[in-house]
Amino acid sequence: MNNETGAAPSVPVITIAEAARHAGETVRLNGWLYNLRKSGKIVFPIIRDGSGLMQCVAVKSNLPEDVFEALKGLTQESSFTVTGKIRAEQRAIGGYELDVESAAIFQRVPEDRPYPITPKEHGVDFLMDHRHLWLRSRRQHAAIRVRHEVIKAIRDYFDSHGFTLVDTPIFTPAACEGTTTLFEVDYFEDEKVYLTQSGQLYNEANAMAFGNVYCFGPTFRAEKSKTRRHLTEFWMVEPEMAYADLEDVKRVAEELIVYIVGRVLENRREELKTLERDISKLESVKAPFPRISYDEAVKNLQGKGSEIQWGGDFGNTDETLLTEDWDRPVIIDRYPTEIKGFYFQPDAVRPELALGVDIIAPEGYGEIVGGGQRIHDLQLLEKRLEEHHLPREAFEWYLDLRRFGSVPHAGFGMGVERFVAWMCGLEHVRETIAYPRMLYRTRP
Amino acid sequence: MNNETGAAPSVPVITIAEAARHAGETVRLNGWLYNLRKSGKIVFPIIRDGSGLMQCVAVKSNLPEDVFEALKGLTQESSFTVTGKIRAEQRAIGGYELDVESAAIFQRVPEDRPYPITPKEHGVDFLMDHRHLWLRSRRQHAAIRVRHEVIKAIRDYFDSHGFTLVDTPIFTPAACEGTTTLFEVDYFEDEKVYLTQSGQLYNEANAMAFGNVYCFGPTFRAEKSKTRRHLTEFWMVEPEMAYADLEDVKRVAEELIVYIVGRVLENRREELKTLERDISKLESVKAPFPRISYDEAVKNLQGKGSEIQWGGDFGNTDETLLTEDWDRPVIIDRYPTEIKGFYFQPDAVRPELALGVDIIAPEGYGEIVGGGQRIHDLQLLEKRLEEHHLPREAFEWYLDLRRFGSVPHAGFGMGVERFVAWMCGLEHVRETIAYPRMLYRTRP
Repeated sequence: MNNETGAAPSVPVITIAEAARHAGETVRLNGWLYNLRKSGKIVFPIIRDGSGLMQCVAVKSNLPEDVFEALKGLTQESSFTVTGKIRAEQRAIGGYELDVESAAIFQRVPEDRPYPITPKEHGVDFLMDHRHLWLRSRRQHAAIRVRHEVIKAIRDYFDSHGFTLVDTPIFTPAACEGTTTLFEVDYFEDEKVYLTQSGQLYNEANAMAFGNVYCFGPTFRAEKSKTRRHLTEFWMVEPEMAYADLEDVKRVAEELIVYIVGRVLENRREELKTLERDISKLESVKAPFPRISYDEAVKNLQGKGSEIQWGGDFGNTDETLLTEDWDRPVIIDRYPTEIKGFYFQPDAVRPELALGVDIIAPEGYGEIVGGGQRIHDLQLLEKRLEEHHLPREAFEWYLDLRRFGSVPHAGFGMGVERFVAWMCGLEHVRETIAYPRMLYRTRP
Repeated sequence: MNNETGAAPSVPVITIAEAARHAGETVRLNGWLYNLRKSGKIVFPIIRDGSGLMQCVAVKSNLPEDVFEALKGLTQESSFTVTGKIRAEQRAIGGYELDVESAAIFQRVPEDRPYPITPKEHGVDFLMDHRHLWLRSRRQHAAIRVRHEVIKAIRDYFDSHGFTLVDTPIFTPAACEGTTTLFEVDYFEDEKVYLTQSGQLYNEANAMAFGNVYCFGPTFRAEKSKTRRHLTEFWMVEPEMAYADLEDVKRVAEELIVYIVGRVLENRREELKTLERDISKLESVKAPFPRISYDEAVKNLQGKGSEIQWGGDFGNTDETLLTEDWDRPVIIDRYPTEIKGFYFQPDAVRPELALGVDIIAPEGYGEIVGGGQRIHDLQLLEKRLEEHHLPREAFEWYLDLRRFGSVPHAGFGMGVERFVAWMCGLEHVRETIAYPRMLYRTRP
C-alpha cells in the first residue's frame, strides 16, 4: 500500500512476527490497538497486527503534540500505523518494543459505540453473534492458527507419501446410507441433489485410477444433535489406497496422527500456551498406539461398569472410558457387521465382524478416525446392497469398480474440527472453525 | 497389504514412479493391465499402477505354465501383481522394463463384459457417464495430476508468504448480490440457507483479525449457462489483505500466477506432454504482465472491430481479442462502478470507476482472477447497500468491520478449474475436476 503516514518511503513495512530480524532498525507496523497504558508523559500502546502483539513506547517530548494526543486517545481496536525503532526488551510481550517516531490513525473507534468485546465475561451466544470480531481475540486467533497448521500438516503428509489429491464432489445424486441426515439442494428443473457426507465411494473409484488418493473438503451432516462434538458443516480428509487392507489403514492413520501432533508442537507452541494447553498430553502421542479389538473393548467397558452389550455402538462416555488407561489414542478394530456400513469387507474367519477400525482420541475427544477395508468382491457387494435395501441402479457405477480390475482396498476419514479441538484442549468444536454451523447457528 | 503372490516376503513393493531407484533389483508391482502384446513365447503386459506405466516381459520358459497362460489371457484393466527384476531399457515407456519372475491375477475382467472404454473414439456423454473409469485414461489422469500440482502450489505460495488459512463457511444466511444464482438448501425447521458463491465478505472480517488471509474451497453458482467455462460447483482460492490496495492485488496475483506456472512446468512436464500441451506458451508466462485500464481495453477492442461500448462488460470474444497482442496474461483495472459489486472502493480521482481488477489468461481461457480494493468507509458502504437495495440488517456484521478499526484492504479470487484448463490446454473445464457438476450433469 502507498505510504500515508509521513514516514520516509524507505522505511520497511514489517509484521510483528518478523520483528526479531529487524532489531535496531526503523520499521513501520500496521495494526489495531490491543491495549493502552498511560504513564504521565509516556503512553504504551500495544499494537496487534494479526501476526503478534508489540508494545510501543510513545514519549511526549519526542513527538508532535497532535500525534502524541492521538495515540493517547486511542480506543480498543482502532486502526493505526506506527514507525519507529525496534528494540529488544526481555520484559515486553514478544521480547521486543518499538520506540515511536511517527504514527497515524486510520480509524478511531468512537467512545459512543465502543468495540463490543471487552475483557469482561461474555456469554457464548453474544460471542458467536460477534464471531466476525471475536476472531481477533487471542484464544480464538490461536485456535485458528493451530487449525491452519493441522490442515497444512495433513496435506504435507499425503503430498509427500505418494497420494494424489482428487477432489470429490459436494453435489451427490444418491444417498449413501439413507437420506435422513442429508441436506437436500434444489438443483435445476426440479432435480434434487444432496450435499456430500463423505467422498469415500468416489475415492474408491479414484484409488483404482491413481493407486493412493485423498480428498479434503467440507462435508455436511443434517443431524439434529446439539453436542459439543457436532457441526452441520465440517472439514474431513479421506485417504483411500488400492492394494491395501485393514492393517494399512491402522499404520497410515497412526503415522499421520503422530506427524500432525509433531508439527503442531513444533510450529504452534506459542498458540498452545495462549490456549493454556497441557503440552505434555500432546508430547506423549507417539507410536505405537494401543491396538484392541471391539471384543476386548466391550469386555474392558463392562469391567468398568458400562452397560454396553456386544453388538452395541460406543457412546461418548464409553469412548472416554476406553481411552483413560492410556496416554495416547486407542485403535479399535473388527466391529460387528450389523453396526457398520454396507461396504465393509467381512473378517475372513468371523464374517459377523467387519474389517472396520476407529481411532479414539484421549481426554474425551472421541472418535477422530473411522475407516476400514472395503468389499472388493462383486457378488458380496451386490448382496449387501440388497440387505441394506439400497437402490441398485444408483450404485451401478460403484459396482463397476468390482467388475473392472477389482482389488483389495481400504481407507479412512479424519475430521479436522475434532482433531483441532483435541490439539487445543477446547471443550467445544465450535471454536475450531471460523464460522461454525450448528443446529441453531447459521450467522454471521 | 499381506503378500498374496507367492513372492518372497522380502521383495519390496514399489510404485512405477520409484522404478529408477530400484534398477537391478527384484521388486513387486501392483496394478492393472494397460495393454498386452504377444510375440510367440513371450508376452509383454504393460502394467498401470496409478503412478506410471511399465512394460513387463514374461518369457514362457521362465514361468510355470499356468502363470504364463494367465498373463497371456489378461484383459484390459484386469488387476494383477508381478514380481521381477527392474532393468533399464531406453526403448521402453518410462525407460525401464520388468522381467517377470512370478505373477498373480486378482480379478480378470471377463470377455463377455469387457472394460467399456476402448481406444476407439467415444462420445463425451458416454465418457462422462463412465467418469469413474475414464479417470484411468492417460489424458484424464494427467489433467488431475496437474490440478493437484496447481492446488499445492497455491497453498504453498500463501503458506510461505505469511497468509493464514481461514476457511469461510459454505452455508451462508444472506445473499451477497441477489439470489438468482444461489443454490438454496433446506436447513432445519423451515430455515433456508444458501451455498456460498464467494468467501470474500468473511475474508474481510478475517483479514482484520489476521492481517493476510486466504480461504480455499468449493463455491457454487446456479447459472443456467452451458459454456465450456462454467461449472455449478468449482474450487476457488481467495486471499484478502489488510492495509492493502489495488496495486497490492496486482502484485500478489501476478506473483502467484508466475509461481504456479513455474511449479507446473517443473513438476508436471510429463503430464503436459501426455496432454500434448504446447509448453512454450507456458514458458512465456513471466512478470511483468501487461497492465492496461478498462478505458484502454475498450479502445483496443473497438479498434479490433468489437461492438463494445464504454460501460459494458467484456464478453468471451472480447477477452480473447484483448489477450492476443501478448504472450502472457493481461491485467485490466478500473472498471465502471456500475458493472461491479457494491463493495468496490471508488477511484479517488474518477469516482465513476471502481478499483477492481481482472486478469485474463491468454489463448482464450478467459478471466482467471477477479478482485480489487474494498470500501473501508462506513458511510460510503451504507450508501452503496441502499443503492443496491440490499437488506441492511443482513449486513450489520459486515458494517461492523468499518466501525471497529477499518483499514484499506483488498483481495481477489482465482478459480482453480479455469487455471487448470489453461495449464493443460483443455477446451472444456469439465476435464479439470474429477466429477464435474453442470446444468445437466450430476452423475456419477
